[in-house]
Amino acid sequence: MNLRTRSRRLAVAAAAGALVVGSSALAYAATDLSDHGGAQRNHGDKTKTIARALDGGKAENVILLIGDGMGDSEITSARNYEHGAAGKLPGIDALPLTGQYTTYSLGKDGKPDYVPDSAATGTAWATGTKSYDGAISVDVDGKPQATLLELAKKKGLRTGNVSTAEIQDATPAVQVAQVTSRRCYGPVATAAQCPTNALENGGEGSISEQLLDTRPDVTLGGGAATFSEVAAAGRWKGRTLQQQAVERGYQLVDDADSLAKVRSADQRRPLLGLFASGNLAQRWIGPKATEDGGSKPAQRCTENPERTDAQPTLADLTDKAIDLLDEDGRRGKGHGGGKDEGFFLQVEGASIDKADHAANACGQIGELIDLDEAVQVALDYAKKDGNTTVIVTADHAHTSQIVEAGSTTPGYTVNLLTNEDRPMTINYATAEAEGSQQHTGSQLRIAGYGPQAANVVGLTDQTDLFFTISRALGLSKSGRH
Amino acid sequence: MNLRTRSRRLAVAAAAGALVVGSSALAYAATDLSDHGGAQRNHGDKTKTIARALDGGKAENVILLIGDGMGDSEITSARNYEHGAAGKLPGIDALPLTGQYTTYSLGKDGKPDYVPDSAATGTAWATGTKSYDGAISVDVDGKPQATLLELAKKKGLRTGNVSTAEIQDATPAVQVAQVTSRRCYGPVATAAQCPTNALENGGEGSISEQLLDTRPDVTLGGGAATFSEVAAAGRWKGRTLQQQAVERGYQLVDDADSLAKVRSADQRRPLLGLFASGNLAQRWIGPKATEDGGSKPAQRCTENPERTDAQPTLADLTDKAIDLLDEDGRRGKGHGGGKDEGFFLQVEGASIDKADHAANACGQIGELIDLDEAVQVALDYAKKDGNTTVIVTADHAHTSQIVEAGSTTPGYTVNLLTNEDRPMTINYATAEAEGSQQHTGSQLRIAGYGPQAANVVGLTDQTDLFFTISRALGLSKSGRH
Repeated sequence: MNLRTRSRRLAVAAAAGALVVGSSALAYAATDLSDHGGAQRNHGDKTKTIARALDGGKAENVILLIGDGMGDSEITSARNYEHGAAGKLPGIDALPLTGQYTTYSLGKDGKPDYVPDSAATGTAWATGTKSYDGAISVDVDGKPQATLLELAKKKGLRTGNVSTAEIQDATPAVQVAQVTSRRCYGPVATAAQCPTNALENGGEGSISEQLLDTRPDVTLGGGAATFSEVAAAGRWKGRTLQQQAVERGYQLVDDADSLAKVRSADQRRPLLGLFASGNLAQRWIGPKATEDGGSKPAQRCTENPERTDAQPTLADLTDKAIDLLDEDGRRGKGHGGGKDEGFFLQVEGASIDKADHAANACGQIGELIDLDEAVQVALDYAKKDGNTTVIVTADHAHTSQIVEAGSTTPGYTVNLLTNEDRPMTINYATAEAEGSQQHTGSQLRIAGYGPQAANVVGLTDQTDLFFTISRALGLSKSGRH
Repeated sequence: MNLRTRSRRLAVAAAAGALVVGSSALAYAATDLSDHGGAQRNHGDKTKTIARALDGGKAENVILLIGDGMGDSEITSARNYEHGAAGKLPGIDALPLTGQYTTYSLGKDGKPDYVPDSAATGTAWATGTKSYDGAISVDVDGKPQATLLELAKKKGLRTGNVSTAEIQDATPAVQVAQVTSRRCYGPVATAAQCPTNALENGGEGSISEQLLDTRPDVTLGGGAATFSEVAAAGRWKGRTLQQQAVERGYQLVDDADSLAKVRSADQRRPLLGLFASGNLAQRWIGPKATEDGGSKPAQRCTENPERTDAQPTLADLTDKAIDLLDEDGRRGKGHGGGKDEGFFLQVEGASIDKADHAANACGQIGELIDLDEAVQVALDYAKKDGNTTVIVTADHAHTSQIVEAGSTTPGYTVNLLTNEDRPMTINYATAEAEGSQQHTGSQLRIAGYGPQAANVVGLTDQTDLFFTISRALGLSKSGRH
């Protein structure tokens, strides 16, 4: 698999302003969209295809991919830009079973809050418990809730946690820690903002410290900065979290080369890859949305020079995580050295959200394309494996909307030139330019493949996803900590 | 069935500012949303339920319900308002099979236009042909395309066309007419804006005139004004369209009482019910979205005094249309007087879109609840009948977004108090206040029940819907006129 090379090539072509003709572009160029039936996506009755996609059995592995802030509007603009309106996102659009789910969070009074944050939404699918904005796998009363990753580990499964964000950011954090505020990355913030969680107060520690305790086999993301903080109490008192990780047997890597050299990861030698001090660099940059951006000539996105080859792509990270989580299983089988336990892996494309907050259309689209490539990796593996469930969804909807090409609106607009050489205008209007564009409260697309994936069809809630994955992996029914 | 009474009662309670506790509200009040699993919508594996919902066979009847402008954001805000975030829209949310579809239109050059209008989108599902904004069932070259309603009629099925808009508006028009511009309601506009379609130039006439020619068994909506226009040429020259309708055997009704008295409708005596000069009055009114509306105290929607009992609800119209389209079939069977031919019925909740354009949250939500009641009528019938496909979707996405409660944003916000006593702030920011809020380009939810409904699952295009319904009803494969 060399998605990295392919994506670089596409990006370079895009940067040169060329009309990129990939396989998807060729597919739609071959038919005339204005013909009767020319824009069809189905060809004939697919009832049997859907029936074949239904599998109520158990999965050996589950890969959950989250596009942070990836609403239907974000999916559509990325598809339009990269593959054309009639094209297909080769990962995201290939999931056979689809539905919508509700994402609301709760106030601390237990009443619905219609616009959630990524902490409450992650807590919902990680634990099956609705909670308040800011909660990292604790309920509205601050009580810890067991997570999918923890329950999978308890059952003897291998586990992985991958993100393009700081690894302490809400979405990766909800699988490995229980703290009362998402801001409690390390000992310093925890002392101030999550006092009941602080080690010095008898708590379980910050998100980073709990991550080291939870000890997934594979942890890959950003957020190295926090690991220079010093433990305030307990066995590791006075030592940095990085020293602690080394002493506790973690393999530490920090770039694509050192990651490539890792041959195995397990409970004896878990892998902790931190590829940036903060969040990983985004794939694309482009024109900023401005008050009159929609009326300007349509522009192309270009490669972000800050994302160097030293930083693995999300597809690379996903590919490596699957290799490491699966490999020992296969080795075990092949050498009679143990049974294949299966694995649970969460993968987050985090900066769709971060770019949407910043009214940065090229950033947002590039990150969605990056996630789509990770979905392709997961689906390819699942199809070969034959016993893996892949679920792709988002945590909450976001601001960006596709508006009339060339129009300006209240708030901010930007005009992009898509790969099919058409203008696409995107609007951001839930905050002023200097502020952060808001999450929105719409229900979201959820899609799946493999055992138990039929449970995403129809209308579900975000908490249902915990139970769907628990059922697929045969995890303990109790989700309590 | 007395949905009318029930909906009035709910509306009155809502108007009084009371916490409305309907069946849905009771359902969620019984569990604590903050409990582990308390917010689940599924209860156990539903793979078998989904498998049972798959039916690749033929349908005797198809009911297609369109919420104009009903994106996922509009669905979510209506659910939150009326049934609570954890509640269920009893019609829309009950469809078992779900997916997303793309809605882009084409320029006259055949290239994608990412934000479509209701004419191009209606043309897509009515004919299977993508076309330009403004096109009423003609392709990008202006060539007429056969519609589902016409093809159904040709096969001997009964047909119906119901809308809360003017019956010449784009969504109802696409099933009964082929004109080059959606504005060509009657002879006057057609002479000026669709000259090739004008009778005096050898064309097929305006939308209203073609509607009379197409002669569905049941046509119910608004738009009476145009019927006072006078035919400019042909057999009916000099007579009003209303006179023409009477002379051609149509039964004309104009209010709930006269509609109630109709006992049958068929090709000898088709029914034309026009209940308003323009569009039907909307169900609810409420506070206007303003620059600082989000920061004002949350308010309730109230009943629109302009919608009197003389105007049937969309559920009433749907119920009556089904009765008339089905009754003769049943009578035929019962009396040995003929076989049951089945029917095709399109129902549009038009003013979700119109209220969204006007940044009118209460209007939009009330119309969506109205459509949901029509969906309940259709689903109830389909479940009893056992051989009816029901599809519910929208034509294009729209502006409204649910933002942080109490926030103000660029553009316009309004703060509503939902039935679960929580503030919900909605933003409109794709046009200035005096302008019309825009359609948006996001993919949309499509959901179905019954034979061939599995074809909505996954990602499809709006044109696929033509082929899905054609296949369900066994219509002629050629969609050409």
